[in-house]
Amino acid sequence: MFKNPFFENKGPFKLTNLVFNEKSNLKPENLVDKLPEDILISDIKNLKDATNKDITFLHSTNYKELAQSTKAFACITIESLAKYLPAKCKKICVNNVLLLTAQITEQFYPDSTIDNNYFNLKPIDENFNDVISGLNTFVGPKVKIGNNTKIGHNTIIEQNVIIGNNCHIGSNVILRNTFLEDNVHILDSVIVGKKGFGFIPFKENNYRYPHVGYVHVKKNSEIGSGCTIDRGSLSTTVIGENTYLDNQVHIAHNVKIGNNCIIAGQVGIAGSTTVGNNVMIGGQAGISGHLKIGNNVSIGGGSGVIKNIPDNSKVMGYPATEIKNFLKETKNKND
Amino acid sequence: MFKNPFFENKGPFKLTNLVFNEKSNLKPENLVDKLPEDILISDIKNLKDATNKDITFLHSTNYKELAQSTKAFACITIESLAKYLPAKCKKICVNNVLLLTAQITEQFYPDSTIDNNYFNLKPIDENFNDVISGLNTFVGPKVKIGNNTKIGHNTIIEQNVIIGNNCHIGSNVILRNTFLEDNVHILDSVIVGKKGFGFIPFKENNYRYPHVGYVHVKKNSEIGSGCTIDRGSLSTTVIGENTYLDNQVHIAHNVKIGNNCIIAGQVGIAGSTTVGNNVMIGGQAGISGHLKIGNNVSIGGGSGVIKNIPDNSKVMGYPATEIKNFLKETKNKND
Amino acid sequence: MFKNPFFENKGPFKLTNLVFNEKSNLKPENLVDKLPEDILISDIKNLKDATNKDITFLHSTNYKELAQSTKAFACITIESLAKYLPAKCKKICVNNVLLLTAQITEQFYPDSTIDNNYFNLKPIDENFNDVISGLNTFVGPKVKIGNNTKIGHNTIIEQNVIIGNNCHIGSNVILRNTFLEDNVHILDSVIVGKKGFGFIPFKENNYRYPHVGYVHVKKNSEIGSGCTIDRGSLSTTVIGENTYLDNQVHIAHNVKIGNNCIIAGQVGIAGSTTVGNNVMIGGQAGISGHLKIGNNVSIGGGSGVIKNIPDNSKVMGYPATEIKNFLKETKNKND
Repeated sequence: MFKNPFFENKGPFKLTNLVFNEKSNLKPENLVDKLPEDILISDIKNLKDATNKDITFLHSTNYKELAQSTKAFACITIESLAKYLPAKCKKICVNNVLLLTAQITEQFYPDSTIDNNYFNLKPIDENFNDVISGLNTFVGPKVKIGNNTKIGHNTIIEQNVIIGNNCHIGSNVILRNTFLEDNVHILDSVIVGKKGFGFIPFKENNYRYPHVGYVHVKKNSEIGSGCTIDRGSLSTTVIGENTYLDNQVHIAHNVKIGNNCIIAGQVGIAGSTTVGNNVMIGGQAGISGHLKIGNNVSIGGGSGVIKNIPDNSKVMGYPATEIKNFLKETKNKND
Repeated sequence: MFKNPFFENKGPFKLTNLVFNEKSNLKPENLVDKLPEDILISDIKNLKDATNKDITFLHSTNYKELAQSTKAFACITIESLAKYLPAKCKKICVNNVLLLTAQITEQFYPDSTIDNNYFNLKPIDENFNDVISGLNTFVGPKVKIGNNTKIGHNTIIEQNVIIGNNCHIGSNVILRNTFLEDNVHILDSVIVGKKGFGFIPFKENNYRYPHVGYVHVKKNSEIGSGCTIDRGSLSTTVIGENTYLDNQVHIAHNVKIGNNCIIAGQVGIAGSTTVGNNVMIGGQAGISGHLKIGNNVSIGGGSGVIKNIPDNSKVMGYPATEIKNFLKETKNKND
Repeated sequence: MFKNPFFENKGPFKLTNLVFNEKSNLKPENLVDKLPEDILISDIKNLKDATNKDITFLHSTNYKELAQSTKAFACITIESLAKYLPAKCKKICVNNVLLLTAQITEQFYPDSTIDNNYFNLKPIDENFNDVISGLNTFVGPKVKIGNNTKIGHNTIIEQNVIIGNNCHIGSNVILRNTFLEDNVHILDSVIVGKKGFGFIPFKENNYRYPHVGYVHVKKNSEIGSGCTIDRGSLSTTVIGENTYLDNQVHIAHNVKIGNNCIIAGQVGIAGSTTVGNNVMIGGQAGISGHLKIGNNVSIGGGSGVIKNIPDNSKVMGYPATEIKNFLKETKNKND
């Protein structure tokens, strides 16, 4: 279950205070169901992880099965989806589910909306005698670093960072909201743990969605120069064990990549996609959001993947298709 | 009308001195029209903005309508295009229009060819008491910063920069020749305002084209980590209001993007293209140079756009076509 | 012939010690041929460059002609390829040629596997009075810098770097194992000379391949902001004279690019590909590894090149094909 190690939960809050306030501009008469007074809510979680002290949200029929078994005390949703929720779950039916979800997440985790720079950094050697580090490398609060780890020059370990043993961190790197296991290599100019590209579009000024997740890079992995890996919103972004990323790769929020994967230069993976184990992705390939790529998959360079890929497949092309089809089609073209 | 706030115009110059000199290697006998002596020219501008004290240039039939109504005193062009210019406009017919244009631009704006590093930087807190800033952040001359703006660590505000109120600038950022309106967010490792990728190819040593423009980011916009936004040559590069760019996006010189646009990771937009309002561009899409993308357009991830796109279109593919065609074709392939 | 200027060769070593040791886990009884005792080997080189004091390797039938004429004293190979080697060349037949090659390369060049940060940097002005340099710019050992060269802020010249005269190096740049000729421009946030993305995949912990090469940027060239150029493994990565790279380009290890090339933004070129002279590559194009692109070739923006391209071709598409075919096909689609 997802447990946030970094962002402080300011709850519990009274359910009525979470829902009815100046920001939401909602009043009891706007809701079909009446909300009980004096109920305290501990946290906001996804449908699966929520307990009977939590609030959750449901915004798509894709999740109707998870909805039927949620244990959440209350759920933000729209009227047409309310029927999928258990009888005892309080339905909070609104027009814009993600907006109220974002506003309530912000009440629990007010620090998660914007990556305000943390300004009270210290030179790394003032606090970490055992770390071998370069020049102009600074570190913020809530940071732990293991033994025999080396950190280059001009690198900023901003806050909310756990680094294991025997890691190599390059120069010009920025880490925040990140957990690196042992023997991880982060090359130069990598940015890990910034908030994802998530917001609710408004004409005048988009509403930034809170990102209370973090980035988890498992042991023996390597992140190439100039990569960007964003942290999750209500979930974790994961790079599996012994997985290698080449230069200039972009991994969006909530993406989960398995073990023993090889990801070549300039690949991009959009938000909430999962990638299995032993997957090879060629240079400049792109994978759309919310997809599932199986185990032992090979994706050719330059491909654009826009649907799920089953285990043990070799795909190529835009849109990516089985490599046999791609090569046959290509042959016909050039004949 | 384009008014350059940053580069100093060293003019006026005598027209004959602008055209005939060692660098241009031109002499009066090389030209069909005789140029008047003792005429002072104030500036070099595009066909539309030039006044009767300016010089301009015409190098393509694409611009023949603008040429017919130009008010410029003189125009650099080739013989076959001279007929599109008004009778009273002095025609300077040469073989390489862009080369002489570049050489004359350099005479007016000698600092605009190369981004020579500016070396006389000062720690930001020596000059800006009201700015909250990180460690090792330095600032050059001709910089203004508004109230309640925050700037991270290792960031360089080189010179010719205006920053509004309530802006957030990340760490490892480099800004020059840039105007940020209020409430703009620039995330980590962004580079804004360097000269565009423009030069006149020569076998031995390419001739760098002057870039006297700047980058204008309008209010409430966000630029993601690792983006590069180049300044314009004789025009401005514009990011509209409330427009959000994800990580690793590249915006070339003279590009103009409208309001309320959403541009996903690793997108690239080539020089002088304009993008309307309310446009969504999926990850890794690319747009060729000198195109016009309308309002309310949606461009699918991975697309390659090589022609103009009308308002209210949804396109996808390489080359990008209406999304209905793209999906139909894809379906046929996989059947 | 490839002569490494930077990595120190710790040899010579006895051939039997190179092959039989704890790391390789090989014993004399594992080999078909008996290796002579007391033979000293000077270096490990490719088939073409190896002398009769060197060891080499052969892992593919692509190289059988080079194998027939190699002068190497010994060659690591597999049984089925041994027949292509000269009679007097000692065959060392193993299952995993690249693994033993990597292990022996590491014995000669133990510093080439990992880019350990070099920590003993000094402020640049302590050693280079003639260089005009910015703030927080540091330099390591084995660095030479020519006259009239300018270097920006927060830049790290790590070690093993030769810089010519009249070069411009931007801010936030990282250079190592790099040779820049005269009048080279390196823009901001470029990373040159890190090890390539090369390793031998293992389930638990990939084996990093040594990279003993360097990056050679020839005179009058320009490298755009945010580019990454990796050094070679047993060869050099080369950027030719008067060749210009736009922003966010990725050049992998062992790539060799000719003179007078123009490479637009976000292009990626995979390992060991060679590109001729006077080649133009449009934005976001990708070129697969181990290919040969001829002279005077034009590659359209967004193309994916997956086979060799002959001289004087214009190609576009994914996979890239002659531009006439691409445009015809496109026209049919949209009719």
